[in-house]
Amino acid sequence: MPELRKDPVTGRWVIISTEREKRPSSYGKYSIEMKGGFCPFCEGNENHTPSELLAYRRNGSERDQPGWTLRVVPNKYPALHIEGELERQGEGMFDKMNGIGAHEVVVETPKHDMTLARMTTDEIANVFWAFRDRVLDLKRDKRFRYIVIFKNQGEPAGASLEHSHSQIIALPIVPKLPGEEISGARTYFNYKERCVYCDIITQEKTEGTRLIEENSDFIAVSPFAPRFPFETWILPRQHSPYFENAQKREYDSVSKLLKSLLRKMDRVLETPPYNMIIHSSPFYENTQDFYHWHIELIPKLTKVAGFEWGTGFYINPTCPEEAARYLREAVPGAE
Amino acid sequence: MPELRKDPVTGRWVIISTEREKRPSSYGKYSIEMKGGFCPFCEGNENHTPSELLAYRRNGSERDQPGWTLRVVPNKYPALHIEGELERQGEGMFDKMNGIGAHEVVVETPKHDMTLARMTTDEIANVFWAFRDRVLDLKRDKRFRYIVIFKNQGEPAGASLEHSHSQIIALPIVPKLPGEEISGARTYFNYKERCVYCDIITQEKTEGTRLIEENSDFIAVSPFAPRFPFETWILPRQHSPYFENAQKREYDSVSKLLKSLLRKMDRVLETPPYNMIIHSSPFYENTQDFYHWHIELIPKLTKVAGFEWGTGFYINPTCPEEAARYLREAVPGAE
Repeated sequence: MPELRKDPVTGRWVIISTEREKRPSSYGKYSIEMKGGFCPFCEGNENHTPSELLAYRRNGSERDQPGWTLRVVPNKYPALHIEGELERQGEGMFDKMNGIGAHEVVVETPKHDMTLARMTTDEIANVFWAFRDRVLDLKRDKRFRYIVIFKNQGEPAGASLEHSHSQIIALPIVPKLPGEEISGARTYFNYKERCVYCDIITQEKTEGTRLIEENSDFIAVSPFAPRFPFETWILPRQHSPYFENAQKREYDSVSKLLKSLLRKMDRVLETPPYNMIIHSSPFYENTQDFYHWHIELIPKLTKVAGFEWGTGFYINPTCPEEAARYLREAVPGAE
Repeated sequence: MPELRKDPVTGRWVIISTEREKRPSSYGKYSIEMKGGFCPFCEGNENHTPSELLAYRRNGSERDQPGWTLRVVPNKYPALHIEGELERQGEGMFDKMNGIGAHEVVVETPKHDMTLARMTTDEIANVFWAFRDRVLDLKRDKRFRYIVIFKNQGEPAGASLEHSHSQIIALPIVPKLPGEEISGARTYFNYKERCVYCDIITQEKTEGTRLIEENSDFIAVSPFAPRFPFETWILPRQHSPYFENAQKREYDSVSKLLKSLLRKMDRVLETPPYNMIIHSSPFYENTQDFYHWHIELIPKLTKVAGFEWGTGFYINPTCPEEAARYLREAVPGAE
């Protein structure tokens, strides 16, 4: 019998399908072969991107020159413009404003054929440090209310360049989904005087069926009501609304856990394309008691179709307990 | 300058991107060549589907035998089960219920290589009649609160069988998105004492820039804040919450408009894969004053990625005024 399950934060229901139950091997395979060709993110091609906003460099190397290990640049084709005022206005019954915002690219490595899963944990930690450095800088701009950090790995997951990179977008409004998380977590807190994410951590540790991996600072689980097969959440044990306020120890810990998780996914799902998103609190409201930053990892295995676009309701053909078991038991291959 | 625009019904903001402005020809082309092979939806293969729930047949032909022009059958791999009780229950902090619902397939034509765009308007009207017949039957089951009717055309849009078909899913809960439409439309009505969709029709007819086509009963527009390039809404002029309560004349009219629109899309976007969804009111609340049924058409031209999954915010690289102009001026080819 299929099950309808409700996400305890957003209230979103999903269908966990059984008739269509899918094992990892029954999802189509994605070719990770790189096409190569000219790449603006490779070391030596620094003049093909806008000038860098941040770089971690070896001693003595110069701005916008080779010698970096990580580099953050403005997106050459930004979805939003950094210059200008919002100019909120109406158009008859409709509402609009200028597309003001920041759109940056984090080039995670100088090497074209490297992936996040295969970097050292120190290199992954540097990616998190770069996210933090940029968020702290962007937060000083009072036009912005929310920053989303995300990664599209592989062309089916929306990556237009194959060189490993992430993106940072600062927005003048709080978008729908983070808004729903905030409002759901606030409602839960008002009712229970507890953080819903802290409660999830407690229950998942006790139950164990959706637990994938944990270390001293983080826990990785298949959520109870995932939209997508093998969707995975990484939650910090320490309650905090803001990703950028984490301790150094936590960035090290999350890097280790993420690396292990990505390598397990690469093993179980054969290097799937995926999206990774950091969910952190908006700025101008007090979310201290009830919001809890976390990371969501979504392997791109299925197609979203009319049913989902029409209802916002998702059909997930792999139950999260099965997904967690596959990932928990996976042995990452030698590097 | 990119624009941020807000959907007046759901309050969802989108980014209309200008840096990435895309003309129709810059979206990748989709091969519509059919693979052929055995098809359970073809005439003569009736015994490869579950027994029919409804068929429009030529005189004298028998149930589950050839001789039909349209056939509705239960989905062989249903996302939800029709038999059983909901058995709502908790699992610690989580909530779930049995996956009870109906999942049906409307085989729109006996011919394998026919498409909705190329059917006669009478044949298309029969598809709408079949939707209506099934909705009226399913509504008698008091476990159901919402019915979604949708079509996935082409493999990139999620169709797993290439033979032209639609799907009907009856659900025991009102899903997120229709719930947001209802709640947004109710709020608007409480404020203005007018239906938000009626107001959209009035403004779009006056402005004209997003108007694609109209006839005596329907109007087709590019919505002000579309999630996707070339997203198109078909709205009935006559205010009514329920698709299934439309007049015969309206089913004829909408068939003509839909055919014209699909042929224009086929011309402008080179037979794109697409999703079509009928948005109609849930059953057990009085939405008479403020909800307005309509059809949403979404050509599948872009990839949804980390930004969208993480925020519920969409980046649309073609502004709706441009999309409307392309479609309005398109001359559908000879059939």
